[in-house]
Amino acid sequence: MSSCIFCKIIKGEIPSMKLFESEKTLAFLDIMPLSKGHSLIIPKHHGGRLTDIPDDQLVEILSVVKRIATASGAENYNILQNNGRLAHQVVDHVHFHMIPKPNETEGLGIGWPTSNPDKGELQTLLEDMKAKM
Amino acid sequence: MSSCIFCKIIKGEIPSMKLFESEKTLAFLDIMPLSKGHSLIIPKHHGGRLTDIPDDQLVEILSVVKRIATASGAENYNILQNNGRLAHQVVDHVHFHMIPKPNETEGLGIGWPTSNPDKGELQTLLEDMKAKM
Repeated sequence: MSSCIFCKIIKGEIPSMKLFESEKTLAFLDIMPLSKGHSLIIPKHHGGRLTDIPDDQLVEILSVVKRIATASGAENYNILQNNGRLAHQVVDHVHFHMIPKPNETEGLGIGWPTSNPDKGELQTLLEDMKAKM
Repeated sequence: MSSCIFCKIIKGEIPSMKLFESEKTLAFLDIMPLSKGHSLIIPKHHGGRLTDIPDDQLVEILSVVKRIATASGAENYNILQNNGRLAHQVVDHVHFHMIPKPNETEGLGIGWPTSNPDKGELQTLLEDMKAKM
């Protein structure tokens, strides 16, 4: 994708603060971090949403996320991957955020509006989703 | 871990609304969902934080997350994995949330308090983290 900013970073056309690179994966510091150590881990394969990336391009991602979480020294941290504008995705190339959470104010802010559906409703949903897998 | 609720679900000692199961991975509906289709994908290997799980127990996770995101029919969705109380982790067995984001009010709420550190500060951090990887 010639217009994709992360593809340009992969090609070296835009500089990045590179933490890790392999054949399939690239990781670099987020330059507008939510906290110190906030990093991005991306598959080199271009795709907008997680479901657009072939499985074989994803097998290494979590191992790299682990290494970066360890290197950051974070005790508390969130791993986040957003899909779609409504879900807070800004760059349309799949990326995993590793975001240290050092205190209440820095790092990812989380809102957790739980609902309490009845068992019958969940059972119907379960059967529906299983049929689609 | 005999006291871990997710280990009990894996062993079948506590029922769950199971979407997928393999040798290394289990997925089930969250019964207090943030939105319809909110699911949990977990490694069977017990560990509190992502960095506690061996790489070979994680290779299948994202492939299962993809299948569940597709089955949910969600157009927008967040993948979230929390580590530590400060980072909103409640159950101390690694779990990945797949949370559909159908509208502004349902699904994951996200706060994004960006900072703007100077280049020198980031460069020092980069060298420090690279040395620890």
